[in-house]
Amino acid sequence: MSEPSDPLADPTGAALVELLGMVAFGELLAFDRMAADARLAPDLHRRAVLSEMAAAEIVNYRRLAARLAELGIEPAEAMAPYVTALQGYHDSTEPKDWLEALTKAYVGDGIADDFFREVAAFLTERDRQLVLDVLHDSHYADFACHEIRAAIAADPKVANRLSMWARRLVGEGLSQAQRVAGERIALTLLIVEGTGDQSGVQALFRRLTAAHTARMTTVGLNN
Amino acid sequence: MSEPSDPLADPTGAALVELLGMVAFGELLAFDRMAADARLAPDLHRRAVLSEMAAAEIVNYRRLAARLAELGIEPAEAMAPYVTALQGYHDSTEPKDWLEALTKAYVGDGIADDFFREVAAFLTERDRQLVLDVLHDSHYADFACHEIRAAIAADPKVANRLSMWARRLVGEGLSQAQRVAGERIALTLLIVEGTGDQSGVQALFRRLTAAHTARMTTVGLNN
Repeated sequence: MSEPSDPLADPTGAALVELLGMVAFGELLAFDRMAADARLAPDLHRRAVLSEMAAAEIVNYRRLAARLAELGIEPAEAMAPYVTALQGYHDSTEPKDWLEALTKAYVGDGIADDFFREVAAFLTERDRQLVLDVLHDSHYADFACHEIRAAIAADPKVANRLSMWARRLVGEGLSQAQRVAGERIALTLLIVEGTGDQSGVQALFRRLTAAHTARMTTVGLNN
Repeated sequence: MSEPSDPLADPTGAALVELLGMVAFGELLAFDRMAADARLAPDLHRRAVLSEMAAAEIVNYRRLAARLAELGIEPAEAMAPYVTALQGYHDSTEPKDWLEALTKAYVGDGIADDFFREVAAFLTERDRQLVLDVLHDSHYADFACHEIRAAIAADPKVANRLSMWARRLVGEGLSQAQRVAGERIALTLLIVEGTGDQSGVQALFRRLTAAHTARMTTVGLNN
């Protein structure tokens, strides 16, 4: 019944819209979070650095919104399904200082980017490239990593506190991710089909976990 | 004693650094404020629009920071004198909803931009052009104006509340501006010399007031 040009008519198109909507809302929230974190910066120089990194997220957002519009989908409509889960995650993990804010960005963006990179592999060339392009560049991770390591070097007790904080972030993130997976059927199907089967999905999660553990070690935190 | 290349050595150079520092910190705060305001947006579309406008401030910030660096001044150092006053203004005028946020941006940026435009006239060509370039483009004012007029059309009582809010903004802004003027001697001198004398300064303030009144009328608010 539907025109082939309607991306919601075929499962891959629906999955693509679900994925782009999630990544786009993720960019808007990353912008929002970094802008708020900038206020926690201990000096004007760091505040400016973080504000500049926040602004870069908006450039990415604009590219995703343009692609959605090209597919005939209002960006706001594609993002709407993720508002409750992503906002819920951020509200329940409000950093109370600069180091918690950086750890949250380092841990959360790291896992999210790995996940998007895995899913991008199941898309056709053009959209795969778009998703890979809008992943966070390594500047932010390098900056956060440098700040966290310096703080631990200055006061080793910081490592314990931030390790506990990181575990809480992962726990909250997983519970919201399960919620989204149960609701976004097209995207979940794409992942199951893309990885092959249930064991393929499990292997994907093992890869995400291993990469997260490696990042924690790099920055001097315990998993 | 000082090298002529040291911009703090001659009064105009000192005034230039004071002005660029103020405009640069104004951009960082405008970014911060719009990013926070985006969270008050009634829908995702408006949220994205405001986030995109916030990001544009950072592009301007970067140009000002680059010019300061070229003058041999750390941007953070040039901005530091304005932190207390500008942050004080923003803390004492925290908008409690979307319309207050838009009114604040419309009123405050309007006056600030008029002021910077006047002072830019006293600079040499290159820096005059830089300051004029980084003034807010009219998109934001148009957007705010449209939203405020629509809200008043839907509920005329809104005009009263927002008019009172705008008067409070101007009052708080003036008291912080006086404080800055008393502290930033080089910039204050530049304005007095640029306008000619005390009566020139008064004429400048009359122009700022007249333009503010016209903006209030345009948007349907009473001065």
